[in-house]
Amino acid sequence: MTYSTVGIGAYLVRLGQRTIQKTSSSPIILTGYQALNKLMGVDVYSTNDQLGGPGIMYPNGVSHIVEPDHLSAVKAAVDWLSYVPSTRAGLLPITDIRGVDEIERPIGFTPKRGVPYDPRRLLAGGDDDVGEWQSGFFDRGSFTETLAGWAKTVVVGRARLGGIPMGVIITENRTAEAVKPADPADVKASEAVIQEAGCVWFPNSAYKTAQAIKDFRTEDLPLIIFANWRGFSGGQRDMFDEVLKYGSLIVDAFVSYEQPVFVFIPPFAEIRGGAWVVLDASINANVMEMYAAKGTARGGVLEANGAASVKYRTKDLIATMHRLDDELKSLDAQLAAIGGDNEAARSQVELFIAQREKMLLPVYEQIAVQFCELHDTPGRMKAVGVIERDVEWREARSFFYWRLRRKLAEFDLRKQLIQAAEVGRGIVAPTPIQASAIIESWFHEDNVGTDLWNDDKVVLAWMAEHYADLEKKILTYTKNIVVQEVVQVMTAGGNTARVGTAGIIEGLAMALQRMSPEEQQQVKQMLTNIVNSGTS
Amino acid sequence: MTYSTVGIGAYLVRLGQRTIQKTSSSPIILTGYQALNKLMGVDVYSTNDQLGGPGIMYPNGVSHIVEPDHLSAVKAAVDWLSYVPSTRAGLLPITDIRGVDEIERPIGFTPKRGVPYDPRRLLAGGDDDVGEWQSGFFDRGSFTETLAGWAKTVVVGRARLGGIPMGVIITENRTAEAVKPADPADVKASEAVIQEAGCVWFPNSAYKTAQAIKDFRTEDLPLIIFANWRGFSGGQRDMFDEVLKYGSLIVDAFVSYEQPVFVFIPPFAEIRGGAWVVLDASINANVMEMYAAKGTARGGVLEANGAASVKYRTKDLIATMHRLDDELKSLDAQLAAIGGDNEAARSQVELFIAQREKMLLPVYEQIAVQFCELHDTPGRMKAVGVIERDVEWREARSFFYWRLRRKLAEFDLRKQLIQAAEVGRGIVAPTPIQASAIIESWFHEDNVGTDLWNDDKVVLAWMAEHYADLEKKILTYTKNIVVQEVVQVMTAGGNTARVGTAGIIEGLAMALQRMSPEEQQQVKQMLTNIVNSGTS
Repeated sequence: MTYSTVGIGAYLVRLGQRTIQKTSSSPIILTGYQALNKLMGVDVYSTNDQLGGPGIMYPNGVSHIVEPDHLSAVKAAVDWLSYVPSTRAGLLPITDIRGVDEIERPIGFTPKRGVPYDPRRLLAGGDDDVGEWQSGFFDRGSFTETLAGWAKTVVVGRARLGGIPMGVIITENRTAEAVKPADPADVKASEAVIQEAGCVWFPNSAYKTAQAIKDFRTEDLPLIIFANWRGFSGGQRDMFDEVLKYGSLIVDAFVSYEQPVFVFIPPFAEIRGGAWVVLDASINANVMEMYAAKGTARGGVLEANGAASVKYRTKDLIATMHRLDDELKSLDAQLAAIGGDNEAARSQVELFIAQREKMLLPVYEQIAVQFCELHDTPGRMKAVGVIERDVEWREARSFFYWRLRRKLAEFDLRKQLIQAAEVGRGIVAPTPIQASAIIESWFHEDNVGTDLWNDDKVVLAWMAEHYADLEKKILTYTKNIVVQEVVQVMTAGGNTARVGTAGIIEGLAMALQRMSPEEQQQVKQMLTNIVNSGTS
Repeated sequence: MTYSTVGIGAYLVRLGQRTIQKTSSSPIILTGYQALNKLMGVDVYSTNDQLGGPGIMYPNGVSHIVEPDHLSAVKAAVDWLSYVPSTRAGLLPITDIRGVDEIERPIGFTPKRGVPYDPRRLLAGGDDDVGEWQSGFFDRGSFTETLAGWAKTVVVGRARLGGIPMGVIITENRTAEAVKPADPADVKASEAVIQEAGCVWFPNSAYKTAQAIKDFRTEDLPLIIFANWRGFSGGQRDMFDEVLKYGSLIVDAFVSYEQPVFVFIPPFAEIRGGAWVVLDASINANVMEMYAAKGTARGGVLEANGAASVKYRTKDLIATMHRLDDELKSLDAQLAAIGGDNEAARSQVELFIAQREKMLLPVYEQIAVQFCELHDTPGRMKAVGVIERDVEWREARSFFYWRLRRKLAEFDLRKQLIQAAEVGRGIVAPTPIQASAIIESWFHEDNVGTDLWNDDKVVLAWMAEHYADLEKKILTYTKNIVVQEVVQVMTAGGNTARVGTAGIIEGLAMALQRMSPEEQQQVKQMLTNIVNSGTS
């Protein structure tokens, strides 16, 4: 957007959803500042930028990108388009990354336990403390952030993985600030600065997350989410500010996604509490898959110390000590040996026991937390079925590249199957999951070993090798759908059957007239066979 | 909702979209208040109601209705269901209003120019100053408001018109207050009370409007909007608070509406400025129609005095005076007659002219505003095509009842047509507007006079009378679709045609086997005719 846009024009900007705003003199406004001053009878505003300049529209997420001049704004638009298919549901624009980056390389940057870091480094890499380059997950230089001024506790953008464009969403793990300006029209207003903790969804960052998913969906991009959320902020302000509505929008956005979605818990990251409501493969099992970094990722509703405080209370810890600690066991034995009337000796031993318990408690508490945390490891997440598998972080780039390529090929094939079924009324059309199951059954006809279906490179190679075969199979499938269709229409009973039968036969006659003599001869022969068949 | 709901449960409540909350001890929360206190290390909250009680969830629009106890909550839910079809796209539950109200009665309540009033009286009626009943637009006692605690500058609910359930949205014309509570967790926070002017959309009321449209759509209700908006609030606070996003949601909500939508400008009401962005029949021409109250409704982008100040500036007014005012004309003549050197006489006349101009100006300014307002009357709105027609307010109930019945019948018929077309691939399916045009062409076969298509009672009577006829026409239409379908598949060329032809013939053979001997004989005869036809 260059120059200004007013009223209906401002709405057109928003309805277009993707806005690039120039940093100066390009306001997006509903009413000019002079008109508002006139309405209020006081000269409150002095420029339109106070109403809809980038100072207003970038921090509130109406403008996705801000650029200093026309040329850079146009360049940003072209860059943006380079991630997006040229038509809806068209081929993804895959770029050649030779000379820029490699597909099969380890990831250089790794977060450290308990050390906050800029999450962009996970995606794009960066220099370490001594100025050495540490590569990130995506192709070098391919990450472009959008909506960066709004709701900074979540970072969204587009990037390339081995040349394939993707949408990406990642949690900010550091505390961010949201600044709400003071409207000059309200004399009582003052600028408000709100601290927003990392790893937590607030109303604005939940809205931004949902908005980004919707933007990526309408750009037909595959999506990866690097998830590190302890949940949604549930204090009074955020509850009043409709966090429940914006969190729900994330679910709604996932439900309509059609391209592959990977949710990945990176090293030392976690998904807790309410975050599970919106991050779960079952929200849209057609497209969503969950993964976690090997060893260090964590997932569970309660955090480990919360779980320990509920499941392993102090009295349980003390019982465990008495079961395991040799000294306590011997003191217990001494106590039991003391006669009922030796009150002094009893108190003495009881004092020793209490001292020992007190000394051991902090250690046992830590062990209890550790024990609870064992329930939240990638291994457990896999065992209870919330993730597909764990992935070694250094190898995540290669893993997701092949996974993505395989998923895209599989999705393409299953789309062909579903479209084939839509030749008919679509009554017998398979769901995406059923279509994948049909493809899997074809795969097993050619390959032994059930595990191979999860080997992305093998599946890709099979698809490439059997391309002609698969096309034939889809054609046969299409024919069977047409057969079912015709049978269904003709034997439906009542008017549908009567009208359907008449329509099919009339259509046959009309189609015949448009065929070459040879084709006609062939079709007539087939019809004669039917007439002469012994069915009546 | 009774009892409390926490975390994932709270999200389920919101994802369900329609919430009835009990006034006491039924909070909707993400995290319990004790857990939050523990997290912050201070006892900030003392009950869960501070986080998600009706004091939070009713003013923010998560809870639609608040009820004092379980029984009344269940009753409210049953009442709500009484407006909604028992299945999606099912028959609307139309109630018998005999003994309660009459369809063909005038509306008792009429707003007065410049006098603010409770907009609910327009819908539901009410007692006047002397306690006399004044009826409203809808059936007596049928209006139920929802989301009443949230964004009070717009009123939404469900009501019945001649027994037919409808969603309704009406502008508040009085100033409302929005109270934002002070979060005890933020020591600097204080309760904020924001005055919101009537007839203006704010971020919250735009969101509420969009939300209500979406709710009604998913309940398959027809919708009427009593529109009285001067536009969207465009001050800094509301621009920062994303009014553009929420206004855009209204457009998105209309786009997917499938039942009839009437937008009606009631007496002395107006649509101005940005309100036209979201209230326009062209947003969804399949279902939307605009109307205005005869005589007193107004519509235009600029308000009349704004238009006058732009289009009829002071210099234009003065020119008009000199053209029309006899005294000025004679002074002009005197001035012209004065010789070039008689400076004294000239100044004298110029003074008279200036005095006369000054005296006339206020009158001419009023006339200019009046003149501009003439461009905004229902007559002009009809002439430029933004409304269908004007409607006498007292007769609006009867008019919209018949219009609604006719539209529902027409929509039902066109749905049958479109579904008939979906028997095939849907390639040749008509749009809703094309389907209406097909029905209109059938109507004209039986009726003379093009205007009659706009006479709702005549069209309804025709549909009832020709019911069997119309069914036959739809069957013929279905058959033609099947014919086109078969021809298209068989003559598409390439693999599609080969596979399609084989499928159709195989389907024919298979269907034959399932038919009775008589049916078989019939079909075989038809096929024999095709084989023996002279096409090859």
